[in-house]
Amino acid sequence: MPFDPQTLSYNDAGLIPCIAQEDATGEVLMMAWMNAEAVARTLETGRVTYWSRSRASFWVKGETSGHVQELVELRVDCDSDCLLALVRQTGPACHTGRRSCFYTAVRDGEPVEIAAPVA
Amino acid sequence: MPFDPQTLSYNDAGLIPCIAQEDATGEVLMMAWMNAEAVARTLETGRVTYWSRSRASFWVKGETSGHVQELVELRVDCDSDCLLALVRQTGPACHTGRRSCFYTAVRDGEPVEIAAPVA
Repeated sequence: MPFDPQTLSYNDAGLIPCIAQEDATGEVLMMAWMNAEAVARTLETGRVTYWSRSRASFWVKGETSGHVQELVELRVDCDSDCLLALVRQTGPACHTGRRSCFYTAVRDGEPVEIAAPVA
Repeated sequence: MPFDPQTLSYNDAGLIPCIAQEDATGEVLMMAWMNAEAVARTLETGRVTYWSRSRASFWVKGETSGHVQELVELRVDCDSDCLLALVRQTGPACHTGRRSCFYTAVRDGEPVEIAAPVA
Protein backbone atom coordinates (compact mmCIF):
# COMPACT_ATOMS: atom_id res chain seq x y z
CA MET A 1 0.00 0.00 0.00
CA PRO A 2 1.71 3.21 -1.09
CA PHE A 3 2.26 5.94 1.47
CA ASP A 4 -0.29 8.71 0.99
CA PRO A 5 0.55 12.14 2.49
CA GLN A 6 -3.20 12.83 2.73
CA THR A 7 -3.50 10.20 5.46
CA LEU A 8 -1.41 12.28 7.88
CA SER A 9 -3.07 14.39 10.56
CA TYR A 10 -2.77 18.09 9.84
CA ASN A 11 -3.69 20.98 12.10
CA ASP A 12 -6.45 23.49 11.36
CA ALA A 13 -4.07 25.31 9.01
CA GLY A 14 -3.41 22.09 7.09
CA LEU A 15 0.12 21.76 8.47
CA ILE A 16 2.17 19.09 10.23
CA PRO A 17 5.42 19.71 12.12
CA CYS A 18 8.57 18.12 10.73
CA ILE A 19 11.74 17.68 12.77
CA ALA A 20 14.97 17.62 10.76
CA GLN A 21 17.73 15.47 12.20
CA GLU A 22 21.23 15.08 10.76
CA ASP A 23 21.45 11.44 9.74
CA ALA A 24 25.15 10.98 10.41
CA THR A 25 25.32 12.55 13.87
CA GLY A 26 21.78 12.49 15.26
CA GLU A 27 21.88 16.24 15.84
CA VAL A 28 18.42 17.81 15.83
CA LEU A 29 18.75 20.70 13.41
CA MET A 30 15.36 22.44 13.25
CA MET A 31 11.62 22.06 13.23
CA ALA A 32 9.39 23.53 10.53
CA TRP A 33 6.01 22.86 8.95
CA MET A 34 4.78 20.99 5.91
CA ASN A 35 1.44 20.70 4.17
CA ALA A 36 0.46 17.57 2.26
CA GLU A 37 1.93 18.89 -0.97
CA ALA A 38 5.23 19.72 0.76
CA VAL A 39 5.38 16.16 2.10
CA ALA A 40 4.76 14.82 -1.39
CA ARG A 41 7.38 17.09 -2.95
CA THR A 42 9.93 16.14 -0.28
CA LEU A 43 9.45 12.46 -1.07
CA GLU A 44 9.44 12.99 -4.83
CA THR A 45 12.47 15.25 -5.06
CA GLY A 46 14.58 14.12 -2.11
CA ARG A 47 14.97 17.81 -1.21
CA VAL A 48 13.29 18.67 2.07
CA THR A 49 10.50 21.13 1.30
CA TYR A 50 8.57 22.98 3.98
CA TRP A 51 5.64 25.36 3.93
CA SER A 52 6.67 28.82 5.00
CA ARG A 53 3.93 30.21 7.20
CA SER A 54 5.36 33.74 7.07
CA ARG A 55 5.70 33.79 3.29
CA ALA A 56 2.73 31.47 2.63
CA SER A 57 4.72 29.57 0.03
CA PHE A 58 6.70 26.40 -0.46
CA TRP A 59 10.17 26.61 0.95
CA VAL A 60 12.71 24.28 -0.60
CA LYS A 61 15.27 24.37 2.18
CA GLY A 62 18.51 25.87 0.91
CA GLU A 63 17.08 26.94 -2.44
CA THR A 64 18.50 30.43 -2.06
CA SER A 65 21.19 29.87 0.60
CA GLY A 66 22.56 26.61 -0.79
CA HIS A 67 22.11 25.08 2.65
CA VAL A 68 20.04 22.22 1.32
CA GLN A 69 18.66 19.24 3.19
CA GLU A 70 18.96 16.02 1.25
CA LEU A 71 16.37 13.57 2.49
CA VAL A 72 17.72 10.27 3.78
CA GLU A 73 14.46 8.97 5.22
CA LEU A 74 11.10 10.33 6.27
CA ARG A 75 9.45 8.87 9.37
CA VAL A 76 5.96 9.28 10.78
CA ASP A 77 5.00 9.16 14.45
CA CYS A 78 2.42 6.91 16.10
CA ASP A 79 -0.37 9.48 15.83
CA SER A 80 0.55 10.53 12.28
CA ASP A 81 0.72 14.11 13.47
CA CYS A 82 4.48 14.68 13.46
CA LEU A 83 7.24 13.88 10.98
CA LEU A 84 10.93 13.18 11.44
CA ALA A 85 13.17 13.80 8.44
CA LEU A 86 16.62 12.24 8.54
CA VAL A 87 18.74 14.49 6.36
CA ARG A 88 22.18 15.31 5.08
CA GLN A 89 22.46 19.02 5.81
CA THR A 90 24.79 21.17 3.72
CA GLY A 91 26.18 24.00 5.84
CA PRO A 92 24.15 25.50 8.67
CA ALA A 93 20.47 24.63 9.06
CA CYS A 94 19.72 27.80 11.02
CA HIS A 95 19.20 31.18 9.40
CA THR A 96 21.56 32.62 12.05
CA GLY A 97 24.40 30.63 10.49
CA ARG A 98 24.47 28.02 13.22
CA ARG A 99 24.42 24.34 12.47
CA SER A 100 21.26 23.81 14.57
CA CYS A 101 18.46 26.19 15.54
CA PHE A 102 18.59 24.81 19.11
CA TYR A 103 21.68 26.75 20.19
CA THR A 104 20.24 28.18 23.40
CA ALA A 105 20.31 25.96 26.47
CA VAL A 106 18.75 26.66 29.85
CA ARG A 107 21.46 26.02 32.42
CA ASP A 108 21.06 26.80 36.11
CA GLY A 109 17.96 28.76 35.19
CA GLU A 110 19.70 31.01 32.67
CA PRO A 111 19.71 31.00 28.87
CA VAL A 112 23.18 30.13 27.56
CA GLU A 113 24.34 30.27 23.94
CA ILE A 114 26.05 26.94 23.27
CA ALA A 115 26.91 27.24 19.58
CA ALA A 116 28.39 29.95 17.38
CA PRO A 117 27.68 30.64 13.71
CA VAL A 118 29.66 28.39 11.39
CA ALA A 119 29.03 30.41 8.26
CA MET B 1 19.05 37.20 33.41
CA PRO B 2 16.94 34.22 34.47
CA PHE B 3 15.16 32.23 31.79
CA ASP B 4 11.46 33.12 31.74
CA PRO B 5 9.08 30.61 30.10
CA GLN B 6 6.73 33.51 29.36
CA THR B 7 9.20 34.87 26.82
CA LEU B 8 8.70 31.86 24.53
CA SER B 9 6.39 32.07 21.51
CA TYR B 10 3.23 30.05 22.00
CA ASN B 11 0.56 29.26 19.44
CA ASP B 12 -3.03 30.48 19.65
CA ALA B 13 -3.76 27.70 22.14
CA GLY B 14 -0.88 28.84 24.36
CA LEU B 15 1.26 25.83 23.45
CA ILE B 16 4.77 25.23 22.16
CA PRO B 17 6.03 21.97 20.64
CA CYS B 18 8.74 20.11 22.53
CA ILE B 19 10.91 17.41 20.93
CA ALA B 20 12.25 14.80 23.34
CA GLN B 21 15.64 13.34 22.41
CA GLU B 22 17.48 10.60 24.30
CA ASP B 23 20.61 12.26 25.59
CA ALA B 24 22.86 9.21 25.42
CA THR B 25 22.02 8.05 21.89
CA GLY B 26 20.54 11.06 20.08
CA GLU B 27 17.39 9.09 19.25
CA VAL B 28 14.39 11.33 18.73
CA LEU B 29 11.72 9.81 20.95
CA MET B 30 8.58 11.91 20.55
CA MET B 31 7.10 15.36 20.14
CA ALA B 32 4.44 16.77 22.43
CA TRP B 33 3.19 20.13 23.61
CA MET B 34 3.85 22.36 26.62
CA ASN B 35 2.29 25.51 27.94
CA ALA B 36 4.29 28.05 29.93
CA GLU B 37 3.44 26.36 33.22
CA ALA B 38 4.53 22.95 31.86
CA VAL B 39 7.86 24.47 30.80
CA ALA B 40 8.28 25.93 34.29
CA ARG B 41 7.37 22.63 35.99
CA THR B 42 9.75 20.70 33.73
CA LEU B 43 12.62 22.98 34.72
CA GLU B 44 11.70 23.01 38.41
CA THR B 45 11.14 19.28 38.84
CA GLY B 46 13.52 17.79 36.27
CA ARG B 47 10.62 15.58 35.15
CA VAL B 48 9.46 16.39 31.64
CA THR B 49 5.90 17.66 31.88
CA TYR B 50 3.69 18.24 28.85
CA TRP B 51 0.23 19.64 28.37
CA SER B 52 -2.16 16.94 27.18
CA ARG B 53 -4.41 18.50 24.55
CA SER B 54 -6.81 15.54 24.60
CA ARG B 55 -7.16 15.50 28.38
CA ALA B 56 -6.65 19.25 28.83
CA SER B 57 -4.38 18.66 31.80
CA PHE B 58 -0.73 18.51 32.77
CA TRP B 59 0.93 15.28 31.77
CA VAL B 60 3.97 14.33 33.80
CA LYS B 61 5.48 11.88 31.35
CA GLY B 62 5.57 8.40 32.92
CA GLU B 63 3.55 9.36 35.98
CA THR B 64 1.22 6.39 35.52
CA SER B 65 3.33 4.14 33.26
CA GLY B 66 6.64 4.63 35.04
CA HIS B 67 8.20 5.54 31.71
CA VAL B 68 9.52 8.84 32.97
CA GLN B 69 11.67 11.35 31.16
CA GLU B 70 14.38 12.81 33.36
CA LEU B 71 15.43 16.18 31.99
CA VAL B 72 19.09 16.51 31.13
CA GLU B 73 18.85 19.88 29.38
CA LEU B 74 16.18 22.06 27.82
CA ARG B 75 17.04 23.97 24.67
CA VAL B 76 15.19 26.72 22.79
CA ASP B 77 15.29 27.35 19.05
CA CYS B 78 16.20 30.56 17.26
CA ASP B 79 12.59 31.73 16.98
CA SER B 80 11.70 30.69 20.55
CA ASP B 81 8.80 28.69 19.12
CA CYS B 82 10.11 25.15 19.57
CA LEU B 83 11.82 23.33 22.43
CA LEU B 84 14.26 20.42 22.49
CA ALA B 85 14.42 18.39 25.69
CA LEU B 86 17.44 16.16 26.12
CA VAL B 87 16.24 13.38 28.39
CA ARG B 88 17.01 10.08 30.02
CA GLN B 89 14.02 7.96 29.04
CA THR B 90 13.01 5.03 31.25
CA GLY B 91 11.47 2.29 29.10
CA PRO B 92 9.54 3.12 25.95
CA ALA B 93 8.59 6.72 25.19
CA CYS B 94 5.72 5.67 22.91
CA HIS B 95 2.33 4.58 24.22
CA THR B 96 2.55 1.62 21.78
CA GLY B 97 5.46 0.25 23.80
CA ARG B 98 8.09 1.26 21.31
CA ARG B 99 11.17 3.18 22.31
CA SER B 100 10.37 6.01 19.89
CA CYS B 101 7.09 7.22 18.40
CA PHE B 102 8.79 7.52 14.99
CA TYR B 103 8.71 3.82 14.17
CA THR B 104 7.17 4.12 10.69
CA ALA B 105 9.52 4.93 7.83
CA VAL B 106 8.58 5.70 4.25
CA ARG B 107 10.75 3.46 2.09
CA ASP B 108 10.34 3.17 -1.67
CA GLY B 109 7.03 4.95 -1.30
CA GLU B 110 5.61 2.52 1.25
CA PRO B 111 5.15 2.82 5.02
CA VAL B 112 7.41 0.32 6.81
CA GLU B 113 7.40 -0.47 10.52
CA ILE B 114 11.01 -0.31 11.64
CA ALA B 115 10.71 -0.93 15.39
CA ALA B 116 8.79 -3.38 17.55
CA PRO B 117 7.42 -2.84 21.04
CA VAL B 118 10.03 -3.29 23.74
CA ALA B 119 7.59 -3.50 26.62
